[in-house]
Amino acid sequence: MERTVQDIINTIIAEVPGTPFPETIDTLKTGDTGQNVKAVAVTFMATYEVIEQAIQLGADLIITHEPTFYGHTDDTDWLEHDPVYQTKRRLIDEHHIAIWRFHDYLHSLQPDPTIVGLLKRLDWATYALPEQSFVCQLPPRSLHDLVHEIKSKLGLASVRVVGDMQMTCKTIGFLVGACGGRMHIDKLKDWSLDVLVCGEINEWETNEYVRDAMATRHSKALIVIGHSVSEEDGIREITPWLQERLPEVPITFIPTGNSLHSM
Amino acid sequence: MERTVQDIINTIIAEVPGTPFPETIDTLKTGDTGQNVKAVAVTFMATYEVIEQAIQLGADLIITHEPTFYGHTDDTDWLEHDPVYQTKRRLIDEHHIAIWRFHDYLHSLQPDPTIVGLLKRLDWATYALPEQSFVCQLPPRSLHDLVHEIKSKLGLASVRVVGDMQMTCKTIGFLVGACGGRMHIDKLKDWSLDVLVCGEINEWETNEYVRDAMATRHSKALIVIGHSVSEEDGIREITPWLQERLPEVPITFIPTGNSLHSM
Repeated sequence: MERTVQDIINTIIAEVPGTPFPETIDTLKTGDTGQNVKAVAVTFMATYEVIEQAIQLGADLIITHEPTFYGHTDDTDWLEHDPVYQTKRRLIDEHHIAIWRFHDYLHSLQPDPTIVGLLKRLDWATYALPEQSFVCQLPPRSLHDLVHEIKSKLGLASVRVVGDMQMTCKTIGFLVGACGGRMHIDKLKDWSLDVLVCGEINEWETNEYVRDAMATRHSKALIVIGHSVSEEDGIREITPWLQERLPEVPITFIPTGNSLHSM
Repeated sequence: MERTVQDIINTIIAEVPGTPFPETIDTLKTGDTGQNVKAVAVTFMATYEVIEQAIQLGADLIITHEPTFYGHTDDTDWLEHDPVYQTKRRLIDEHHIAIWRFHDYLHSLQPDPTIVGLLKRLDWATYALPEQSFVCQLPPRSLHDLVHEIKSKLGLASVRVVGDMQMTCKTIGFLVGACGGRMHIDKLKDWSLDVLVCGEINEWETNEYVRDAMATRHSKALIVIGHSVSEEDGIREITPWLQERLPEVPITFIPTGNSLHSM
């Protein structure tokens, strides 16, 4: 059975509670909702290289978690005369690639696949609280040991940390992606966290709150692991879920990896 | 002569072209515009420890470049029940500390003190283009060598980089702080940069543009040095400028440093 882009989007959205959302960033960014889909590529971000790999796989629909054109809304007016954008756009258009963003709907699945993927990679799923899947109650360890365990399990050359390396860490919260300082700071308090592990920050927000927490003898720490590493395992996680729901279409996960290298 | 907080703010604003701005984040965050000022502390950010040092120096006005309460607008409603905020607020109120933000006006000085401070620290002021002080034309070097020179001169344990370590770098642009992906990407193109050095990024913007630039054979690179390191030398730079204009008030620079440690 031939499936259109819109059929596939509808199948996915139907699985998410409270849908369709009246406002969402999860729209079609390129291509046409009516075009037939031969194969699907699923990815954290539709970079130029990911699109090339999708084409090699015969995929004509890319489901991407993050934006394609360097901004949250994927506006392209400001990029019209940009040679990098023009080259990327040409590749997409010549191969009739439809790109759909699966961000708001993905995070609204229960449980959120990104936290499932991250805790699986860390091998800490059994420590997650039954009532709050974003919080793990770990056997006590120093912040120093916690940082090294996270780096080792996630294969990271470095992370960015605020905290006293000797502090005892038991209650660890996870907020993937870039959900902003207010949520980070509220959850540090509301979830009584010792440590928040997050994707990325604005550098005048959560890190400065934690610095002030340390100065005022509130034992808190922050570990910033990077946006893509915090979410990419969750996007990988969603691929078999999609395959179950769309058995007639080949669906392949393409890793994006982190563009940023710590040196 | 006694000077009030408002006198001092007026003296500073009068030096900035096109002032007062109808909309600005540069407002008084704590204290009262009418209170007399004994001494001034100037800082990148009024952290708890910076406020303690200011009090020890006898300062009752802190001029800060970045927010005090973990968000761009310094709203505090959401923090009312937060113990870290409560402790910081108590310290400020008990010592009658006025805190004024000097952000938009500071960046509107000609030249912007933050770029002056950063290029002085890098010892590259003589390479800045006469018509564009944010761009340096350096003798050619590899990205690898450029990164190591920047780390060494700024005393950084690490920076985050996107780029080919062998690429030749001549035209280097600097955008301090967090001015957003659109400005980063526009200036990479408009200034014909080989490399952009910036304070911080959103991880779905500039770094992904540069990754796509590399994939489409546009030789570009990005070096992310951190928000505070990109601007703090400029805030230090403004202190003698303030001392000249306010000779009757003791004015001291207090370093903030970076809360984030790469591990």
